[in-house]
Amino acid sequence: MIVVGELINSSRKAIAAAIEDKDAAAIQKVAKDQFAAGAHYIDVNAGIFVGKESEYLNWLVKTVQEVVDAPCCIDSPDPKCVEQALKIHRGTAMVNSISLERERYYSLLPVIAGTDLKVVALCMSDDGMPETTEARLKIADKLINNLTKQNIPLDNIYVDALVQPVATSDSFGIEFLDAIQVITANYPGVHTICGLSNISYGLPNRKFMNQMFAVMGIAKGLDGLIINPLDKAMMAGIVTAETLAGRDNFCCNYLEAYRQGGFSW
Amino acid sequence: MIVVGELINSSRKAIAAAIEDKDAAAIQKVAKDQFAAGAHYIDVNAGIFVGKESEYLNWLVKTVQEVVDAPCCIDSPDPKCVEQALKIHRGTAMVNSISLERERYYSLLPVIAGTDLKVVALCMSDDGMPETTEARLKIADKLINNLTKQNIPLDNIYVDALVQPVATSDSFGIEFLDAIQVITANYPGVHTICGLSNISYGLPNRKFMNQMFAVMGIAKGLDGLIINPLDKAMMAGIVTAETLAGRDNFCCNYLEAYRQGGFSW
Repeated sequence: MIVVGELINSSRKAIAAAIEDKDAAAIQKVAKDQFAAGAHYIDVNAGIFVGKESEYLNWLVKTVQEVVDAPCCIDSPDPKCVEQALKIHRGTAMVNSISLERERYYSLLPVIAGTDLKVVALCMSDDGMPETTEARLKIADKLINNLTKQNIPLDNIYVDALVQPVATSDSFGIEFLDAIQVITANYPGVHTICGLSNISYGLPNRKFMNQMFAVMGIAKGLDGLIINPLDKAMMAGIVTAETLAGRDNFCCNYLEAYRQGGFSW
Repeated sequence: MIVVGELINSSRKAIAAAIEDKDAAAIQKVAKDQFAAGAHYIDVNAGIFVGKESEYLNWLVKTVQEVVDAPCCIDSPDPKCVEQALKIHRGTAMVNSISLERERYYSLLPVIAGTDLKVVALCMSDDGMPETTEARLKIADKLINNLTKQNIPLDNIYVDALVQPVATSDSFGIEFLDAIQVITANYPGVHTICGLSNISYGLPNRKFMNQMFAVMGIAKGLDGLIINPLDKAMMAGIVTAETLAGRDNFCCNYLEAYRQGGFSW
């Protein structure tokens, strides 16, 4: 399981303020906390700053990597911003994300082709957001085939099948989960990843619902999550589900999490 | 989702004592509490009383049905005990369980053939407990085919694929989960059911692990559980997972559980 820490995102007020103030200490604390809690990648996003996104994103990458020994997940829909941030980044970043949207696809492809970057492949096209398992598969098929042709190995591709709110349609949860299952089965070695919060949009008790959805995803083969790693219940759910999914030799991670008090939230 | 309340089981000390004392009030309280908490069937088991099992099982059925308007799940490996208890039972009981073990199979089959009883079909044979998805499927195939030939409709069959401890083998969780998925896909309309506590045997924090496993099972198609319905966290996990699995029109059950405070454990 790859955990991407999602907290350094400019859509969060405190982060937006820290970015504008160039408050490195504030950003670095959030980065360190997430890394200590088990994040493998630190997501960096400066998307709300139109016109200044690239400058701020570069600053985030530099600021984060000064204090944590982890790669960043460069989170921008703008290929130019991604390209610039990658020049600053040390080590092998994750790029979040390429999609089948024409403009985004053709501008980002030359940046990532033939590299060993990790690539989030978002199941989105110019036809909009897919709603069914089949619609997701159609986009995932194209993305995976195109990316591997560009010498990006399956092992570096993280398909994001796009979580949508179950309050909008009863089937939106299971259509996503079934997509994970089929993509995982059809392309052995490819990874899947997602954020969770959309699933519970408009409903009460969202943290619990998000946790349950992560656990169900793991049962279906999901092996990447963009989450708040400081959420102890979520992390306990993940480690337990991984153990139950046969991904934990001798239950070592489960027992270690228990010993460290990870379950006492 | 069919919930079978598991608490009236003679392997529990307080229940064994209540049975021996013929303490109807004690048994009836447990039955009523489980029914109020959402159990669809009340499991009754007097298995520890060798020589007296049938007498006690009959008394349990009578005692429970005096106070709750729900069918029992008649829980005995002894076909003679099941047959006697069914004579006392009002309404359509669940029989727990038939298996491919030769003696049990041939003695119980005439009792259930052609009836409208719900039947738990346990994936066990004289070769012992199955460990892999394939071994479970082999037994499930035979049981389902044999039972439907005896005019037991698919809709009345609840396959119990037999949960085994993940502490014994890393793959025991996922082999079970994958079996649920394949059985559900291969026999549309058949049901699956299980108890949970074996999964966490030998590990700490068992309640949480059992809850996560139930939620993962629901992601794979599981639609029956033999559990303690008084466990609010478990019930919250189930209702949430059902919503996420597309089995809750307009999220009504989820919202209702939230309004009733089901999430405030």
